[in-house]
Amino acid sequence: MRLCRFDDDRLGVVLEDGGLADVPEVLARVPPKRWPDLAGDPLIAALPQLRPAIDGLLDRAPRRRLSEVRLESPVPRPGKVIAAPVNYLAHLEEVRRDPQIHRSRRIAEIHEAGLFLKASSSVVGPARGPAVPFPDRRTDHEIELAAVIGRRVRNVPPQHALACVAGYLVALDMTVRGPEERSLRKSFDGATVLGPWLVTADGIPDPGALELRLWCDGELRQHASTADMVIDVAGLVALASRWYTLEPGDVLLTGTPEGVGPVRPGSRLVAEITGIGRFETVVRAGAEDEADA
Amino acid sequence: MRLCRFDDDRLGVVLEDGGLADVPEVLARVPPKRWPDLAGDPLIAALPQLRPAIDGLLDRAPRRRLSEVRLESPVPRPGKVIAAPVNYLAHLEEVRRDPQIHRSRRIAEIHEAGLFLKASSSVVGPARGPAVPFPDRRTDHEIELAAVIGRRVRNVPPQHALACVAGYLVALDMTVRGPEERSLRKSFDGATVLGPWLVTADGIPDPGALELRLWCDGELRQHASTADMVIDVAGLVALASRWYTLEPGDVLLTGTPEGVGPVRPGSRLVAEITGIGRFETVVRAGAEDEADA
Repeated sequence: MRLCRFDDDRLGVVLEDGGLADVPEVLARVPPKRWPDLAGDPLIAALPQLRPAIDGLLDRAPRRRLSEVRLESPVPRPGKVIAAPVNYLAHLEEVRRDPQIHRSRRIAEIHEAGLFLKASSSVVGPARGPAVPFPDRRTDHEIELAAVIGRRVRNVPPQHALACVAGYLVALDMTVRGPEERSLRKSFDGATVLGPWLVTADGIPDPGALELRLWCDGELRQHASTADMVIDVAGLVALASRWYTLEPGDVLLTGTPEGVGPVRPGSRLVAEITGIGRFETVVRAGAEDEADA
Repeated sequence: MRLCRFDDDRLGVVLEDGGLADVPEVLARVPPKRWPDLAGDPLIAALPQLRPAIDGLLDRAPRRRLSEVRLESPVPRPGKVIAAPVNYLAHLEEVRRDPQIHRSRRIAEIHEAGLFLKASSSVVGPARGPAVPFPDRRTDHEIELAAVIGRRVRNVPPQHALACVAGYLVALDMTVRGPEERSLRKSFDGATVLGPWLVTADGIPDPGALELRLWCDGELRQHASTADMVIDVAGLVALASRWYTLEPGDVLLTGTPEGVGPVRPGSRLVAEITGIGRFETVVRAGAEDEADA
């Protein structure tokens, strides 16, 4: 099943024919969160119970065209956005070659660097798109396969890890180059683009056999297979769960392959992963307009 | 006003006489969060409107003794836990002297390192207490002043920054030493202890003139003044808000002074900041018992 969020607060199912079934009734069955129980995405947590109801709505649901809706992030506000640094060896070599990226720091392999966090407030969908927060600093595109955690789990072994994944997404891990820690440079508003929809895990039998492609203004910049990951999806879920409890809606970005490069406001990015889908998004200038003070 | 959460889901006000007023009625006025609008702590966001109601309850609220309740984190699940690395110069010097801490990495000053993130799933209160996740690795205590953001704000200048703070807490930023990025080593379950209660900002006229003290098993290990911060609270809020939108309930840890040191399961920590209060907490072993899989 391909689940999307669109036009801010609407839930849709992307059908085989490319149309969109509008299923707002489902949201009435998603339990609200009450203080202090704020952990986890309540839609992702309830998804196993909601799926029969969603299936039952498809025949009579109003249809929309994908081209006429604004695609938002299917996971609006993950509890954690966990990410894997340099999880493709060819990208590690690329980083070590480029002084604008490594900036004289020794870049550690993932086995030493571990995982890092991105702010959940950085998450946007393709319609809003990524931002360049500081015009005088280099900001790069990084396409990644993202796994969305489906249930609360800790210390899961790799052989059981994929059973904890609710589904998969295409992610852009936008990155400001510079001396600060990754958890700052990759956390600005608009630094994490998630889309175009969540493909439930039953639709992706092998997340280690997908092709990623990223075009910037028509030029193919990144093209690799998830088979080339240093630590595969199951290994990353297991590693993360040794450090902290994973919860429904937590998003795990699995690292970017070689070919990262700078963007500027107006750059048109197309991100595609086979078996999931593709989205197009346009880079915007930093979000000065969002100031409340 | 000193607001606490206790016994999991109860809200209390700590009174002048040291007693606790139990005010559960207030929670019925905290709006629930509905998917997809999951951002922000709804109690903190509504606090300005709720305060008259809370004040009105104090005369007739049932009293509890602080000693008989379990103190939980007043902010149960922050949207972001932002933290300042090496924000006291004496601590920077200490880190650079100790190879077990710096591990041959060059430790950058905060002006270069920026800020980092901790997982919000790492937050616990004094009653649950901090954990030592990996018994074979060194885990340190770090006491810090924490500011809780009160409203949605971006790009706030330092001179307006303190007006965005809802209140202050005492924090323990527990840290596994090792090669991984801070956002992993400081994010394990139990890595962030927040307590004993939230002192609303009107109770802390100058967050730059507070004394921090941390005892481990009766020994005074850390003792410093927030006057010695490299970047003060207002500067940190302003810096953070240039990178990302701050939201109600986001927690900003302002860095630890010198005197950090290792703990082990059973270590008894007392953390105190003048004007806020003190809590005692006992270090526990890693949370294997929390596994769901």
